Amino acid sequence: MAERAGREFFTTRTVADALAGFRPRRRTGAKTVPLAAALRRVPARAVTAPHPLPGFARSTVDGYAVRAADTYGVSEGLPGYLTVAGAVRMGAEPDTAVTPGTAVAMPTGGVIPPGADAVVMVEYTAEVMPGTIEVVRPVAHGEGIVRADEDARPGDEIVPCGRPLRPQDLGMLAAAGVTSVTVHEKPTVTIFSTGDEVVPPETAELKPGQVRDATASALAALVADAGGEPIYGGIVPDDQGALERALRGALPASDVLVISAGSSVGARDETANAVARLSPPGIWCHGLAIKPGKPTLLAECDDVPVIGLPGNPRSALVVFRLIGVPIVRLVGGCVVPPPELSTRARLSRDLASATGRLDIVQVTVAAGVATPVFGLSALLSVLTEADGYIVIPEEATGLDAGSEVNVILYG
Amino acid sequence: MAERAGREFFTTRTVADALAGFRPRRRTGAKTVPLAAALRRVPARAVTAPHPLPGFARSTVDGYAVRAADTYGVSEGLPGYLTVAGAVRMGAEPDTAVTPGTAVAMPTGGVIPPGADAVVMVEYTAEVMPGTIEVVRPVAHGEGIVRADEDARPGDEIVPCGRPLRPQDLGMLAAAGVTSVTVHEKPTVTIFSTGDEVVPPETAELKPGQVRDATASALAALVADAGGEPIYGGIVPDDQGALERALRGALPASDVLVISAGSSVGARDETANAVARLSPPGIWCHGLAIKPGKPTLLAECDDVPVIGLPGNPRSALVVFRLIGVPIVRLVGGCVVPPPELSTRARLSRDLASATGRLDIVQVTVAAGVATPVFGLSALLSVLTEADGYIVIPEEATGLDAGSEVNVILYG
Repeated sequence: MAERAGREFFTTRTVADALAGFRPRRRTGAKTVPLAAALRRVPARAVTAPHPLPGFARSTVDGYAVRAADTYGVSEGLPGYLTVAGAVRMGAEPDTAVTPGTAVAMPTGGVIPPGADAVVMVEYTAEVMPGTIEVVRPVAHGEGIVRADEDARPGDEIVPCGRPLRPQDLGMLAAAGVTSVTVHEKPTVTIFSTGDEVVPPETAELKPGQVRDATASALAALVADAGGEPIYGGIVPDDQGALERALRGALPASDVLVISAGSSVGARDETANAVARLSPPGIWCHGLAIKPGKPTLLAECDDVPVIGLPGNPRSALVVFRLIGVPIVRLVGGCVVPPPELSTRARLSRDLASATGRLDIVQVTVAAGVATPVFGLSALLSVLTEADGYIVIPEEATGLDAGSEVNVILYG
Repeated sequence: MAERAGREFFTTRTVADALAGFRPRRRTGAKTVPLAAALRRVPARAVTAPHPLPGFARSTVDGYAVRAADTYGVSEGLPGYLTVAGAVRMGAEPDTAVTPGTAVAMPTGGVIPPGADAVVMVEYTAEVMPGTIEVVRPVAHGEGIVRADEDARPGDEIVPCGRPLRPQDLGMLAAAGVTSVTVHEKPTVTIFSTGDEVVPPETAELKPGQVRDATASALAALVADAGGEPIYGGIVPDDQGALERALRGALPASDVLVISAGSSVGARDETANAVARLSPPGIWCHGLAIKPGKPTLLAECDDVPVIGLPGNPRSALVVFRLIGVPIVRLVGGCVVPPPELSTRARLSRDLASATGRLDIVQVTVAAGVATPVFGLSALLSVLTEADGYIVIPEEATGLDAGSEVNVILYG
């Protein structure tokens, strides 16, 4: 049987090798989108502040703009007295300057009038008679003030290249008057399903031996999560010619090709053969040291990364999450991926694992305890019951009950 | 000054009180969407399997369907011999039964033929002459087989009510032939900005004292993340009549109203007064024991939750993430929110905190160390520089350098 394995998995790699070594150069182009459509999009270049922000010195409190020196030494027992020379209105230029011995009433966010270098909070003042306040606490130079360029200086990078835009980034861009952003186009990911037994999900009545295509819908969702644009390529029969034609047809309009291959050895070989005939440089690996998911194929054809996934839905989704999602992100220009949802938990029981192979174990998590969900790799219900998974690394022979594990959570 | 505080924050609450006690009853209606549009949508009712899945007993391996009893006691040294009575094709009904002493060739995923109760892997067989195989390992009853209802029995819940749909849930629905799902409609969240100083982000040239509306863009993104549909209500001047008219006009078409209030005390009072006049039951709290974000208002008017946020963008976003996002989710029927992105880290320095108040401290995280990003609460750049935040609970007086903290990460 070694011979069969040798033919089937002609270049098996570890997952770490694949993540580090299979780095397609393809990147999507750039397009400009309005701010309202920019959430989670990946900037194709950094954005810098066109002018200082907030743009003028502002008060951070309700109170009185003063000269800090006029408040030195004041206290509850020995207040200072200042003449109120005017008041600043929100959104308007001050019409009064602060001179020694005077103060100007300030709303939070108002423009600091000329001559003032601090704002004393209203809580530390009292109007002792019309036009005169007492001040019972000193303020330091600059207190109660945001400088004109304190949020950003002109030229400061306010949004980096290659990191998906978060809500607060959109706020910062809006503040700077940047209402559109040049982002990477979403990678077009064409998803093919193969297998003579596979029929579309909308098939009401199944004939004996038929199964509905579960993988394509789930893969499309993972592609969307990774910032890609999924395209259904359809279901291709287990026939090398048909698959090759289908892939070749999709290649020009795709940034990434994904094939959930047939489950049987024959079907897997056909996928590999079809991909091998496509275009150079071709197959990078066929076989990953991972369970589930061994029959995974990675290739590059005409600069388009091609991912051949195992035939059963559960293995396909496990592998695509681990290997496919980073590829889609990379092609889409995302070099700073968002952090991964994870939690620490204690393992409920011993887990065995073969060395030299990454083991992905689905778990539920409750009260800090991770409990493995067992079941055949053909079962999708194992994935829907799970809250996440743990990774048993290649070098480990297993994990002991009670050991602390990192659970990657499904969001 | 106690009097002013008393007027301004007439019912201050803790964040825990607000999360537990402010539970609007409003829920969005239901609509049916196709599977391709159902990712992250919240099912309005559970979905059950209409029939058993996978629907027929399938092989999990490439090999031979056999009667397990025919393999008992075989070994490498003492193989058993079986006559190959036929072969199963993918996606087709078997045309041969397995009788004592016979085997049927099986692809992975094929239909188990009548009479067989196990599948022996091809690796443990060899074709010793045409039509005859030797078997060198015994198989147990049921080995190599997925039962017809092993992934789901008819009536099993395959998707629960109230939990956003994940990629694997869509796969399971597709497998069951469920190609549309009844989900909660996205809550319509109308976002108003107030303040005489606030101008639209597209304003190219600012007049003295003007600032662009940063909050609305960021809030819209947080609303979308929470599963809502953001609607821009526009910028309303600091005028109680105008605000009341604007809110009243938006009420009928909104599931949630959000107002980023003016920063100054006067503007905050106007927001509260406008909301108080809207509709009963009215204001639930005005003032949260949180820093930043104290001047937060929570109300319910005509069954519509109303959230009044602090005037400065940073405080508004901190509060909306903590208080607003759960409200939007709840109104949208999400009772099992997705897990929160977080990581454990060691604090780089001591942090002081007042008891009785929740402190939100923005941090960067690198190499397991959380470093606070300091800056005035008026600065949005503190949020864009941060990787996440830590929460110092009400009862704490601070945190020591080196202590392990939970960082909520920005995704």
